Amino acid sequence: MLEHITEAQLKRMTLKELIALCEEAREVITRTVLKTGGHLSSNLGMVELTVALHYVFDFPKDKLVFDVGHQCYTHKLLTGRFNEFDTIRQKNGISGFPKREESEYDCYNTGHAGTSVSAVLGIAKARDIKGENFNAIAVIGDGSFNNGLIYEAFNSLRLLNTNVLLILNDNGMSIAPTVGSMHEYLEILSEDMAQKSKKDRHAKIFERFGFAYDGVYDGNDLEAMINKLTEVKERLKNESVILHILTKKGKGYAFCEDDPEATHGISIANASQIKAEYSEVLGKTLTRLAEKDERIVAVTAAMTSSLGLGEFFEKYPERSVDVGICEEHATILCASMATEGLKPYYAVYSTFLQRSFDEIIIDICGQNLPVTLCIDRAGISGADGETHQGVFDLSFLSLIPNLTIAVPKDVNEFERMLEFSSSFNAPLAIRYPREGKRVFKEQSEIVLGKWEKLLSGDGKYAVIACGERALTQVFASAEELRAHGINITVINARFVKPIDGQMLDGLREQHIITVEDNMLLGGLGSLINCHMTGKGKTLKNFAYKDAFIPQGSPAELMEELGVSKKEITQYILKNENR
Amino acid sequence: MLEHITEAQLKRMTLKELIALCEEAREVITRTVLKTGGHLSSNLGMVELTVALHYVFDFPKDKLVFDVGHQCYTHKLLTGRFNEFDTIRQKNGISGFPKREESEYDCYNTGHAGTSVSAVLGIAKARDIKGENFNAIAVIGDGSFNNGLIYEAFNSLRLLNTNVLLILNDNGMSIAPTVGSMHEYLEILSEDMAQKSKKDRHAKIFERFGFAYDGVYDGNDLEAMINKLTEVKERLKNESVILHILTKKGKGYAFCEDDPEATHGISIANASQIKAEYSEVLGKTLTRLAEKDERIVAVTAAMTSSLGLGEFFEKYPERSVDVGICEEHATILCASMATEGLKPYYAVYSTFLQRSFDEIIIDICGQNLPVTLCIDRAGISGADGETHQGVFDLSFLSLIPNLTIAVPKDVNEFERMLEFSSSFNAPLAIRYPREGKRVFKEQSEIVLGKWEKLLSGDGKYAVIACGERALTQVFASAEELRAHGINITVINARFVKPIDGQMLDGLREQHIITVEDNMLLGGLGSLINCHMTGKGKTLKNFAYKDAFIPQGSPAELMEELGVSKKEITQYILKNENR
Repeated sequence: MLEHITEAQLKRMTLKELIALCEEAREVITRTVLKTGGHLSSNLGMVELTVALHYVFDFPKDKLVFDVGHQCYTHKLLTGRFNEFDTIRQKNGISGFPKREESEYDCYNTGHAGTSVSAVLGIAKARDIKGENFNAIAVIGDGSFNNGLIYEAFNSLRLLNTNVLLILNDNGMSIAPTVGSMHEYLEILSEDMAQKSKKDRHAKIFERFGFAYDGVYDGNDLEAMINKLTEVKERLKNESVILHILTKKGKGYAFCEDDPEATHGISIANASQIKAEYSEVLGKTLTRLAEKDERIVAVTAAMTSSLGLGEFFEKYPERSVDVGICEEHATILCASMATEGLKPYYAVYSTFLQRSFDEIIIDICGQNLPVTLCIDRAGISGADGETHQGVFDLSFLSLIPNLTIAVPKDVNEFERMLEFSSSFNAPLAIRYPREGKRVFKEQSEIVLGKWEKLLSGDGKYAVIACGERALTQVFASAEELRAHGINITVINARFVKPIDGQMLDGLREQHIITVEDNMLLGGLGSLINCHMTGKGKTLKNFAYKDAFIPQGSPAELMEELGVSKKEITQYILKNENR
Repeated sequence: MLEHITEAQLKRMTLKELIALCEEAREVITRTVLKTGGHLSSNLGMVELTVALHYVFDFPKDKLVFDVGHQCYTHKLLTGRFNEFDTIRQKNGISGFPKREESEYDCYNTGHAGTSVSAVLGIAKARDIKGENFNAIAVIGDGSFNNGLIYEAFNSLRLLNTNVLLILNDNGMSIAPTVGSMHEYLEILSEDMAQKSKKDRHAKIFERFGFAYDGVYDGNDLEAMINKLTEVKERLKNESVILHILTKKGKGYAFCEDDPEATHGISIANASQIKAEYSEVLGKTLTRLAEKDERIVAVTAAMTSSLGLGEFFEKYPERSVDVGICEEHATILCASMATEGLKPYYAVYSTFLQRSFDEIIIDICGQNLPVTLCIDRAGISGADGETHQGVFDLSFLSLIPNLTIAVPKDVNEFERMLEFSSSFNAPLAIRYPREGKRVFKEQSEIVLGKWEKLLSGDGKYAVIACGERALTQVFASAEELRAHGINITVINARFVKPIDGQMLDGLREQHIITVEDNMLLGGLGSLINCHMTGKGKTLKNFAYKDAFIPQGSPAELMEELGVSKKEITQYILKNENR
């Protein structure tokens, strides 16, 4: 039924047919995600609501924005992407997030939390300015509801004087269970279903901002959703509405319903290849260090276990803070706790650290405070695509004064960098990818700003690289080149900032090549270029060019983007034959 | 009385003496600020509250965080900085903002809005972890209360399980009158003073997050403030309190009370030197362009008139949006309006654009939308110091794919860049300083990515610079060098991204020198260094080194930091005599 469905056909279906359609969607999503990886439980919870939305509203004339966007699978299946659905999140396949480039039914690209209310307000405001007539709808989970952007958007609703529909899809979870007072408040609203007067009083918080509040309803009851949306659609002519619904994350599949956190995102990484995850090392090492150092506190923004900090949080609850999806607030908490002599570690995915840019500058580095940023999923992050790549962090961090940036070559070095951090009394960023596949033989002492020579060559080529992925490519290239009688020097640039000027200056006679899992501009290569300015050096940088990087596995993308052993080898061989 | 006052002395004063102290503080602040420039009306409104805080609490043991921090002048006068007070905001003088480096009474540096609640929560949490006992207090204006950070902090109060005091200093203004539903809500609370039952109902919004709400009181009534704070101090042992007070911005001086917006910040720039402000050109040009182009909308975050957009907002209210201090939300509004075919201009100070970093990446550039960022106060911004310098923007923008960056050499070129922008269909950033002093003779057509040769030299030195300030230094240096028989080529790098590779490659035989009013890393020089990598070119970059830049005038700071005609001339002369 789903394969060739159109909006028009869907609108002619009976309830029974629509229910069957839901079951088919649920089955396709489960089958596909278990194969390709992706977001499972959140999408299973959204099936009925999505079908009801398509039944009641007129897309693409009406506009639908998904907050974060990971819950849009049913929407994709209903809008002409059934046949490509098994390519989801794979290289050259369809995206796991809404994508304007992919379909006119995807009106706004999302990826980071909390943007949907602002986006739908902008869309509605533009509609009003243009004198057009359509409905603007955002679907947002209760996890995103913690983000400060929501408040900024709410605060401007009356000011913008426009009408939108917000569907608050409440499943009590983001990736992890939702925390915070807003969440408790939503729980109160949900519990109050039978006590109308009490609920009305509670709903005042939304009405204060100009929304009519309507809730709480069962978002997995298709018929109820269709009726409710039909009713709300009429009200949108005159007012903005928050429709509060409850859905069951993982709905329909017992293993998802039972463990929605573990099935929020399904990974298809080949576990046998992975020796030790960086997140595991973070958790173990920080837990160990915290035993002796009472100043250590750990702060996260809604992804404690994916960051490896589950054990730390269990062992030291009084020194652990998960603030929900509030990256800016988390950053300032770290800075302010550091002003009182504590030693905060803020663990975060690279892509989400972008939210804290101003606070890293002003609060952490401007006050030169000993906060350690543990930046996970740095470099190419893979299947989530453009909005989740961690390829900007070296660039936006290296421009900040007072910040030291370290990049471990493997999990062992990461452990020693964390030990180093515990006595380091200034802002420090440590960035690392998800997977730790290789352990290098050399393990010399970590000294601030000092690099490490991993291979001594014959003095013609010095390849400087940072991080496990880049160094792995360099080592593979070194081996290939050895077969051609060329022995390159390989240097582990543990510290991207400060760079090891002394070692660099000692390489004056060599042809310097840089390799990194980051954009060129502002990264390791760029820093070395600036250091070498005016010295007439021959340099070659392997890094990502100035373009957004689509989804794909780190290995295939690095290959495609030319940060690979193949390119390094070819470059050196070509240079030899010049 | 104020000159040598200590905390102990202040606590022994009679009410009458304290009132006299307030008058003295008010007099000193007014006299000083009218001479040195600075924040006037907000500080006048804060005198009684600050004296009451110092009377009731025990600083520096207790901790006091000022949101934004511009209202801390009385606090500085009371804490040993009376004798340096006339150096405020001047080079090597005391800061106009709280500064840990300056006094143990300044516990947390601020500058950007909305950080104080997070900071005071972090300080209180650290206190609890360490088992210490002191009070943690934040003073925040109603303008900052619009920022999303407030919500993130509120949302985590119960989670952090700690007690703080927030003093909501409500004067109905940030720099401009406060907007938004939260502001309307605060107004309702204020009007309800006589109707206790109604007020209690309204106060629920704060209690929902775990604060006890206490308000509204007259913050300019010293005795009332002392009594109220004494009472609240007791309550802090058991709960967190929001104390809502009303103060009169500009209190005590009729010309401030009458026009608090104009006297929020007093500037001492010598008006006769300034030919035309960039902000004025922005306003006029955009208003003119909007006449013919109905797609044009203007968005600001609480500083419409300082950005020059007063006229635009008056003439096109339906195409104007000021969202209050919500930089992230403003950015997404622009992106989403652009998805609907509008042409949004987001005008903002460089330093505050840092808050939108993630949204510029994901929402604007990730979707490749035609939003124009009009970045005012770029480069060294002067007397506000470290937290307000606009020296990072070229660096954090140049790393973002899909973004074009333009830097006008003077106000005329700025006008033509805005004309260029109106038919440019992709993300564009235009950055400029506050003052437009000089108008260059050459005014060639703006072509994407093309630079302009302003002086043709004798082929030995090519100086590439962007922006009026840098080019002004270069022209002055060119003149000096002419006296030595050296004729340099001067190039206006109008586009920092994309750079003019063709022109650059045509300069291969010349010694290239770059000059800019920005950090080196990621800026114009850095981009040119990367372009030239491997080409064995001799390059020299004049830009700011990797350090925070303290307060001072742009001219004196550029001189001190070596981005000056003097340094350029000396470098070239030295090179000649080598």
